[in-house]
Amino acid sequence: MAVKSTMLSLTTLLLLSITTFMLLFGRPDTSFFFGGLSRKCWKTTVAEKLERVNAEIPRDWLLPSKVLEEGRGRREITGSFIESLLDQETLAITSLDNSEILEQTTNGSLTAVRVTRAFCKRAAFAHQLNHNLLEIGFDLALERAQELDDYFAKHKKPLGPLHGLPYTMKDQFHMKGMETTMAYVGWVGTFEGKKGTGKEGRVESELVMELNSLGAIPIGKTTLITSLWGGETNNNFLGYLWNPHNQQLSAGGSSGGEGAIQALRGSAFGFGTDIGGSVSMPAAFNGVCSMKPSWGRLSFKDTANSAPGQAVLPTVVGVMGPDFFTIRKIFEATLSTQPWLRDPDVLPIPWRKELEELPTKLTFGLLLTDGIVSPHPPITRALREVAEIVKSLGHEVVMWEPPSHNASVVIHPQIARGDGSPDVLANIQLSGEPIIPQIKNLFPGGKLRAPIPLPQFENATLYMKDFRKQYQAYWQSTAEFTRTGLPVDVVIAPVSPHAAPIPDKSYYYTYSSIVNVLDLPAAVIPVTLVDSKLDIFDKNYKPFTEKDRLTWQAYDADKFDGTPASVQILGQRWEEEKVVAIARMITEALKKSKM
Amino acid sequence: MAVKSTMLSLTTLLLLSITTFMLLFGRPDTSFFFGGLSRKCWKTTVAEKLERVNAEIPRDWLLPSKVLEEGRGRREITGSFIESLLDQETLAITSLDNSEILEQTTNGSLTAVRVTRAFCKRAAFAHQLNHNLLEIGFDLALERAQELDDYFAKHKKPLGPLHGLPYTMKDQFHMKGMETTMAYVGWVGTFEGKKGTGKEGRVESELVMELNSLGAIPIGKTTLITSLWGGETNNNFLGYLWNPHNQQLSAGGSSGGEGAIQALRGSAFGFGTDIGGSVSMPAAFNGVCSMKPSWGRLSFKDTANSAPGQAVLPTVVGVMGPDFFTIRKIFEATLSTQPWLRDPDVLPIPWRKELEELPTKLTFGLLLTDGIVSPHPPITRALREVAEIVKSLGHEVVMWEPPSHNASVVIHPQIARGDGSPDVLANIQLSGEPIIPQIKNLFPGGKLRAPIPLPQFENATLYMKDFRKQYQAYWQSTAEFTRTGLPVDVVIAPVSPHAAPIPDKSYYYTYSSIVNVLDLPAAVIPVTLVDSKLDIFDKNYKPFTEKDRLTWQAYDADKFDGTPASVQILGQRWEEEKVVAIARMITEALKKSKM
Repeated sequence: MAVKSTMLSLTTLLLLSITTFMLLFGRPDTSFFFGGLSRKCWKTTVAEKLERVNAEIPRDWLLPSKVLEEGRGRREITGSFIESLLDQETLAITSLDNSEILEQTTNGSLTAVRVTRAFCKRAAFAHQLNHNLLEIGFDLALERAQELDDYFAKHKKPLGPLHGLPYTMKDQFHMKGMETTMAYVGWVGTFEGKKGTGKEGRVESELVMELNSLGAIPIGKTTLITSLWGGETNNNFLGYLWNPHNQQLSAGGSSGGEGAIQALRGSAFGFGTDIGGSVSMPAAFNGVCSMKPSWGRLSFKDTANSAPGQAVLPTVVGVMGPDFFTIRKIFEATLSTQPWLRDPDVLPIPWRKELEELPTKLTFGLLLTDGIVSPHPPITRALREVAEIVKSLGHEVVMWEPPSHNASVVIHPQIARGDGSPDVLANIQLSGEPIIPQIKNLFPGGKLRAPIPLPQFENATLYMKDFRKQYQAYWQSTAEFTRTGLPVDVVIAPVSPHAAPIPDKSYYYTYSSIVNVLDLPAAVIPVTLVDSKLDIFDKNYKPFTEKDRLTWQAYDADKFDGTPASVQILGQRWEEEKVVAIARMITEALKKSKM
Repeated sequence: MAVKSTMLSLTTLLLLSITTFMLLFGRPDTSFFFGGLSRKCWKTTVAEKLERVNAEIPRDWLLPSKVLEEGRGRREITGSFIESLLDQETLAITSLDNSEILEQTTNGSLTAVRVTRAFCKRAAFAHQLNHNLLEIGFDLALERAQELDDYFAKHKKPLGPLHGLPYTMKDQFHMKGMETTMAYVGWVGTFEGKKGTGKEGRVESELVMELNSLGAIPIGKTTLITSLWGGETNNNFLGYLWNPHNQQLSAGGSSGGEGAIQALRGSAFGFGTDIGGSVSMPAAFNGVCSMKPSWGRLSFKDTANSAPGQAVLPTVVGVMGPDFFTIRKIFEATLSTQPWLRDPDVLPIPWRKELEELPTKLTFGLLLTDGIVSPHPPITRALREVAEIVKSLGHEVVMWEPPSHNASVVIHPQIARGDGSPDVLANIQLSGEPIIPQIKNLFPGGKLRAPIPLPQFENATLYMKDFRKQYQAYWQSTAEFTRTGLPVDVVIAPVSPHAAPIPDKSYYYTYSSIVNVLDLPAAVIPVTLVDSKLDIFDKNYKPFTEKDRLTWQAYDADKFDGTPASVQILGQRWEEEKVVAIARMITEALKKSKM
């Protein structure tokens, strides 16, 4: 099969860069071109980086300006729209399930080069339409794919269980040959903001090494919110990230780029990081599956981060993908490399198949509201749909009434950002880039807030430890009223009160931050789409709190129509295997029910 | 067999209380009896507590004053001295190995009541000679033993694998019917310093519940240093704790009472807590075995602590006992109860028997000095003796040259006590008790130090995380030069530069604090005794540092003569099973070599 290429000129490449640039900054500011600045203007750095990154897209993969325009004008760019732009080979390969791809790459019937070229091309289109890649490594990826094909030819077997499967990662991970900026303009040409270390583009995060050793192929790095502290994605490189399902809504954050590219099937799977819903929210908003594990299952070693010295409420790596076959495979494969031998912060627990064997009778807790902010109608409908489907499979559903989520409201900000985020301001100041509006509240008047005193931080930690004990005790106590006589197996809960948020109208992150405070494994399942006819605003709804009132005021059935509505499945700490198995069971049942 | 009892009068009981009191405070201060204080004098609280605790000793177990005097005059009170005081039944039972006791209690040939009475009596003697119990629960223990015997009679099987085995615990753990003071006078009559909670004597630490469910029997709570921040044990209840092997030397700390009572075989096994050597040091100094695991293997839930909100360098529970049969049994048994279902901070890792299967060729790293402070001659001799014995078993020994221990010198105090220890001062001030000399440096001029800023705390954390990575990378790199081609299995290292220290002459804790900074499992093995003829001061020794000079100036072969010299065996994080198996192999080989 030959790749049908759309041959485009250099002019289009320039156009793409200018278009991105104008989307970001409006009309070019003449002072930028003619001003007499002593240090290089941050806008120049941005322009140069974008030019370099976009130049990684082969010219014949550049979309014509009228397609770009059409994309901008549409509500949705996923599914049939992006697919209509693909050649037959690319469409055929990227339409396969990952299980089918792996079957064929590991038995030699599909080459890594063909798979990689297909995903790179689709990623190129996804990026041009959605601006979700901060780094592109298509050439490197195709080189690596060739090596894998050579390996297969020579050894008559695949390199590993992920042979030839292309992936993307949030721009916190280090990959050889690609730059990490974590969306800081001041990190361009440096290693994590430091110049002249010789590490630029040479360091590889532990997880990247594991994936590559298993045969997976990195193709690019996805956009995120500057500082990581936010539920929408915006930065001074690529600007505000729109949701590919509904371009009036946010793709979510902080791992928004990863959620968006997965929604567009620009890679076979990807990774985000999560300290308060930064994987679960964008997965939910973009209608893809995800798994945010408890601390210690996936390696975070040699990865850039905000507040890297804050270890009480640690950032964890989460996986996103189209299905739980893929997510399970990633965990099983990476853990098969025994990462605990190379990362002292990975637990020596292999993927435990015995936890995947589900009993015939499970009990599900159902959290419809936390009594602080209630989910919008489509989320409630999604929660009930999952409850009904598990009941139809013979399982029990009980109401989940845990200790109050208010604990997280108090605990999370003190631990996560009690230090005043000095690293964020310092990194922004490296280039003089402006503070994006979404994080202005971190630095009132552009100044650093004083850190909370260490004893206060320790009090918050103690509160968190006590809360974890209380929550677990509640969980165990459910054995008293379940039909099995055993505690609830997993909980069906909202990820957020809303589907993908309207920009600047997201008020409550506790449905996901509570999961980090408790360090529970959380699988996100896309359940349905908002339906303006079904999901009607209840005028008689009495808000519990001011945040609830704001959240409900932001509900707009027409605006949300057609956007994914997702839920999360929570397990007890370190029960990833069980949670993934149950999430897989649910997604398969949902699929069948919709056939 | 009838218990031969030494019948003593009420007078002796009074004498014991007065003796303890005078040892502590010298002649009673008349102001204490006649002063017009508005709040109860802390000394009254102490006297009342001691009277109550000592009254738990049956009168016929009280030692005559001339025995107490003889004990005070002796260098050593372990072994033949304490045993000469015991009746035949008590001596016979407490002379059995724990494996023999358990064999007999679980097959019904020895009752729990007989075992418990024997250990309680020996503990009573140990306490009268050495002042190591802050709480005594003999009556409760004998009641519980009777319940266990009734259980056995009814069910014809033991309650659990620890059926009838008496234990002690550092006075941080909560046990029903006993008070927890953590050596604070102000905690008497309270729950962790709070009055009127209704929790006094009612709360049970998770680990206590586990042990009791397995058939073990708590008999008392051991003394510790006020605040837990020190390597010698002293407090305003029982005073300075002397080493039962050599009463001119310290029993070590902070879990000194547990080390001392184990040295005197006052219980079958016991528990301390460790954040910088607080289990390993007293085990080493008192010549008993111990295992300080990595975080997350034994439950710390519902246990009093200093700086309870400091979770970056967590305190861990460690086990002490006469041998590694016992220590292995405790881990295996407690983990069989699946503590992770009740404590969110215990890892879901059962006792992994597969890690106990040792290959025929192991590689040992040998750390003779860290280049900052070198161990005294007897410790070096103990290290070499262990190296020789493992070589004689066919294993390889290589020099261990890890990243510098200076990292711990910088990291440990900032994380552990960066908060300025406000809880300690507040707890001391509850009663107005004086600050013991060993911790005066924590509160210059009796005042609280300012906490370090949170960003500095986070920098120290980041340094710790980086150091762990470096250390692990070094460990893995040893595969390049071992004969097996695999990394070093375990490391033989000093616990401290010295045997049990001369009071106030302990200058360097890093051989043990580094183990906490790295969160490695550490087994302490008593190897030999200091021998003033063999362990000669090297006059030509050139100290590396000022601390080294001070440490070497404190060496006194005659003073240390006859005191235990121990080493520790370090494994990689969470390799407890392997470390215990190797420690057991070594102790058995040492025993054989000395036959």
